[in-house]
Amino acid sequence: METSNRIEILPVNGVPEIHPGDDVAELIVQAAEDRLRAGDILIVTHKVVSKGEGRLVNLRGIEPSALAKRFAAEYGKDPRQIEVVLRESRRIVRMDRGVIISETHHGFVCANAGVDASNVPGAESVCLLPVDPDASAWRLREQILELTDLDLPVIISDSFGRAWRFGITNVAVGVAGMQPLTDYRGGEDPHGNPLEASVLAVADEIAAAAELVMNKTDGVPVAVVRGYDYRRDDEATGHDLLMPPERDMFR
Amino acid sequence: METSNRIEILPVNGVPEIHPGDDVAELIVQAAEDRLRAGDILIVTHKVVSKGEGRLVNLRGIEPSALAKRFAAEYGKDPRQIEVVLRESRRIVRMDRGVIISETHHGFVCANAGVDASNVPGAESVCLLPVDPDASAWRLREQILELTDLDLPVIISDSFGRAWRFGITNVAVGVAGMQPLTDYRGGEDPHGNPLEASVLAVADEIAAAAELVMNKTDGVPVAVVRGYDYRRDDEATGHDLLMPPERDMFR
Repeated sequence: METSNRIEILPVNGVPEIHPGDDVAELIVQAAEDRLRAGDILIVTHKVVSKGEGRLVNLRGIEPSALAKRFAAEYGKDPRQIEVVLRESRRIVRMDRGVIISETHHGFVCANAGVDASNVPGAESVCLLPVDPDASAWRLREQILELTDLDLPVIISDSFGRAWRFGITNVAVGVAGMQPLTDYRGGEDPHGNPLEASVLAVADEIAAAAELVMNKTDGVPVAVVRGYDYRRDDEATGHDLLMPPERDMFR
Repeated sequence: METSNRIEILPVNGVPEIHPGDDVAELIVQAAEDRLRAGDILIVTHKVVSKGEGRLVNLRGIEPSALAKRFAAEYGKDPRQIEVVLRESRRIVRMDRGVIISETHHGFVCANAGVDASNVPGAESVCLLPVDPDASAWRLREQILELTDLDLPVIISDSFGRAWRFGITNVAVGVAGMQPLTDYRGGEDPHGNPLEASVLAVADEIAAAAELVMNKTDGVPVAVVRGYDYRRDDEATGHDLLMPPERDMFR
C-alpha cells in the first residue's frame, strides 16, 4: 500500500458563528492557524458564506402568495418559508408530498431552492444560497491569497438530495481555481456528444470527502483536502457541474 | 486547525488484474502489505469483485432482441451490449438519445444497468455488477477478518451519473459492517415521514472520497479510508441508500 499519494481531509475547527458583514476569509485563516499549505483545497460550507454576505431572510417580512399558503397548509409547513423557496426558484421540478424540488436562479436543482432554516440564529430567519457562489469562492480565494500568500482553490459546498438515492451528500455549488471535472478517457460518441461516463465530478467528490470531517454539517464549516493533485483552472466554475438543459433527461 | 480527527484516504496499489475465480480478498491483503489497521474502511471498486465472481459476459453469445437492435441502430451502439443492459434491468426509467437509465435487478437506478465495457479484457466482453453487492461486501469482510484478524467495514463502489448534475461520482453499491446513513437531527415531518434533509449518505461520501485516490477509476481499484468514526452495524446494507419507491419522485 503506497502512501505517497495519500489524501488527507482536515477539519478547520474554531470558525466562530458568522454574522452579516463578517470577514469570513479572515476568520477562516485565523481558525486555520497558519496550517494551510500550498496545494491544499479549501472547502467552505455555503452557510458561513451566506451568513457573511447577509443572505438571511426574516420571515416576519414575507407575505406568502396564494400558492405558498395552499401548499403550506396542506403539508403543515410555514407559508412564509414556502414563499421564500418559490422566490428563490426559477422553475419548479416537483411540488408534491410537502417537498419542493426546483431549479434555483443559479441553475441548481435541489430541495427547497437551497433555503434552509437549520442552524440559523433566530427562529424566524432562514438562510439562502449565496447570490453567486462562484463569485463568493473567487473572493474567498483572493482574500486568502492576500492574507496567507497561498493561492488555494476554494469550493463552496451544500448538501443536496439525489434522485433515486436516499440521504443527502455534499456537493460543490461554487468553485474557484481548479477544474471541477476530470475527463479521463476523452472521446465522443458517434453523435459528437461527450462520453459522459468518462467525466468524473471531482469537485463534488472533494466536497463529499470534506463533509466526513464536518460532522453535523454545520459543526465544522470548513475543511481542507490535502494531497489531491487538482488541475488548476482560473476559468472553470461550479456551473461546469450542472447538466446542460439539452442533455438533462430529468427536467 | 485540529488534526486529531483528520481522515486519510490511502490508495491500495498493486492489486493485479483479476480473473474469474481469483481470491480477491487475498489479493487485496497482499497488496496492502500488512498496512491495514483497525478502524479502517475498505472501499473496493465493483469491477474487481465482479471479475472475481465471473460476472463477465462475452457478447458473441448474446442474441439481441428487436428492441435492442432498433435502439442500437439508431444511436450507433452494439446491439448485443444493449441487450445485456436490458437483461440486467427490471424497469426502464429513460431510453433516449443513446442513453438507457434503468433500475437494475438490485434496485439501483443508473446508466446502462451498470454494464461496462471499459477495462474488461477482450474486446467482446462486458462486466456486470455483482449479483448481490452486499453479499460480496460481506464475504470480503469475512475473508479479510480471517486473513488479517481485522474486522473492517467494506464498501463496494461504482461510479454513477446523477440527475441534473454533470459528471459521475463514486457511490456505494454494497456495504457490510457499517451504517451507511447518519441521521444527525432525527425527527419526523408532520406526516410521520423522516426528515430527509437530516440524513447524510456517508457511505456514498466515503466512496466518493475513495475515488480521489483511485484515479482513472480502474487504475487503483481499492482504497482505505482511515480515521472516520463510522457506526458499526451488521444489519445495514447498501439497500439502505436506495430511495424507497413510495418516496421516489423521479421513478
